[in-house]
Amino acid sequence: MPSSTSERSARPRGPFALGVDIGGTKVLAVLVDGRGKIVAHGGHRIHANDGVDGVLGVVREAIEACLGNEPPPVAGLGVGLAGQVDRRRGTVHLLPNLGWRDLPLARRLTREFGYPTCLVNDAQAGAYAEWRHRSSPRPRDLFLLTLGTGVGGAAIVDGTLREGAHGSLGEVGHTTIVSGGRLCHCGNRGCVEAYVGGWAIADRARSAALESPAAARRLMARAGSPEKVTARTVLESYRAGHRFARSIVDETLGYLADVGVNLANAFNPEVLVLAGGLARALPGADRVLEAAIRSRALPPASRTRVEFAAFGEDAVALG
Amino acid sequence: MPSSTSERSARPRGPFALGVDIGGTKVLAVLVDGRGKIVAHGGHRIHANDGVDGVLGVVREAIEACLGNEPPPVAGLGVGLAGQVDRRRGTVHLLPNLGWRDLPLARRLTREFGYPTCLVNDAQAGAYAEWRHRSSPRPRDLFLLTLGTGVGGAAIVDGTLREGAHGSLGEVGHTTIVSGGRLCHCGNRGCVEAYVGGWAIADRARSAALESPAAARRLMARAGSPEKVTARTVLESYRAGHRFARSIVDETLGYLADVGVNLANAFNPEVLVLAGGLARALPGADRVLEAAIRSRALPPASRTRVEFAAFGEDAVALG
Repeated sequence: MPSSTSERSARPRGPFALGVDIGGTKVLAVLVDGRGKIVAHGGHRIHANDGVDGVLGVVREAIEACLGNEPPPVAGLGVGLAGQVDRRRGTVHLLPNLGWRDLPLARRLTREFGYPTCLVNDAQAGAYAEWRHRSSPRPRDLFLLTLGTGVGGAAIVDGTLREGAHGSLGEVGHTTIVSGGRLCHCGNRGCVEAYVGGWAIADRARSAALESPAAARRLMARAGSPEKVTARTVLESYRAGHRFARSIVDETLGYLADVGVNLANAFNPEVLVLAGGLARALPGADRVLEAAIRSRALPPASRTRVEFAAFGEDAVALG
Repeated sequence: MPSSTSERSARPRGPFALGVDIGGTKVLAVLVDGRGKIVAHGGHRIHANDGVDGVLGVVREAIEACLGNEPPPVAGLGVGLAGQVDRRRGTVHLLPNLGWRDLPLARRLTREFGYPTCLVNDAQAGAYAEWRHRSSPRPRDLFLLTLGTGVGGAAIVDGTLREGAHGSLGEVGHTTIVSGGRLCHCGNRGCVEAYVGGWAIADRARSAALESPAAARRLMARAGSPEKVTARTVLESYRAGHRFARSIVDETLGYLADVGVNLANAFNPEVLVLAGGLARALPGADRVLEAAIRSRALPPASRTRVEFAAFGEDAVALG
């Protein structure tokens, strides 16, 4: 996404709605018509130190790129955020990657843009979009697992997006898979995110490289220095056939398999959808998870299917 | 429960229903009146080698004890089972403790007793009973964790018991908390049940005793021999003030704390209910879990309350 773009297609039908995904490193906006079709895109990269005003400036640009020169009537604005939100009150509890906390964002956006505004957790928005998109027949139970810098999740149960008592239902990124294990950004030990989140893949690769510098030689040559190792460089090194990166990726897929079996047993969705930037970058993640579920989940839950998200990056904004 | 008992109370009102809990070591039956009040009990111990016919004979005795000499009209029979059931088809997928598999139990019970019969997972029955019992206001989201020989769970989400696509929703006993850890009866490694289930507490105590025979001296004196160590003897030894048993119990509570935080984040119930024979036997389990959730769950989910089950042993049959 080098810059804002507008791709208005012919003859869209109203009523229109705007969807905005405020992630840790980018803003993405879409204009959706009455049939749920995306008719325009806009977006730009952001940085944590842009502050609220800076990020909202990028949101404005992205929305303007969507609306073009002849803005259609827009019924409302939905905003997906990579963190904890209070949907009813329209506030952000905590957005760790941008450092936002206790921010009455919906009110501010309504004042700024004039549309009724609804905040939603990004995984919840993605789960809703992926569920709505599926048909013939639409699954009654779907779980969306987002794999990116962080790890999140959301669940459609009995045909409805469920949020739990305080909005965190589906937040499996911060469930323990290694009791007493690696320290997570949330302050706990052994969380799913501390093993398969983008930052954790990079951390694990760095630690392993310190232990076996000779084996990690080719990854280090690619990254330049240990502190420049990221999930992206690990995956590039893997695709280039480097054995060290392969061991990190295989280990990651092993932890992901545990997560898949846990989700099949505990949430028992008909379909488990893998979303987020890392999902497709992890080679064969869908097949590895489905195989693990078939062989290791409880008898009824072993039928859970695993699929990649249909919408990729647009899922959150669309939701 | 030495033998069948009948405790009919005065002036119960119809319509009546029968509830039966077929556990791994006992059958418990209750007669419930139209207001959901238990008006009679029956029950007896069973053994895995009693076979289906033997266990159904005990079910008949327990039901007859409930109905007494002047049986009231009964609208239906609900059966809670410690395993995987297909509620719609009325079949038992797998009942590990009794070795039952793919059994069309509902049809058989209807033929035998003449009542419309519904099978349900024991944790699901318990969750429903605990939820129904609560009032002013009734929580919309409740999770019931059953701690016994095995570990199970079930969830009320948005005011309804949810089963997932294939009936296993809430089965957190077989989710991984120690990736690659202890072998579980389900064939996986590192499951919750393999750390905090009754059989696992006994196994862990035995392994630790083999490593430190001197420290385990007082537990061994109580149990008689290593193979006679059970969760019950460990808890008796703990209550007698023995340090070795205390370390086993503390470790168990540590794993349970992880489970509590996982449940608060992922299912985000308003109230987490601890049920099953082990729940109250584990000293302070409710306080330990609630403290862990307050300090370690995500900000919104940290408000989840922890309570012991109101119905104790009757919860499953009542559900």
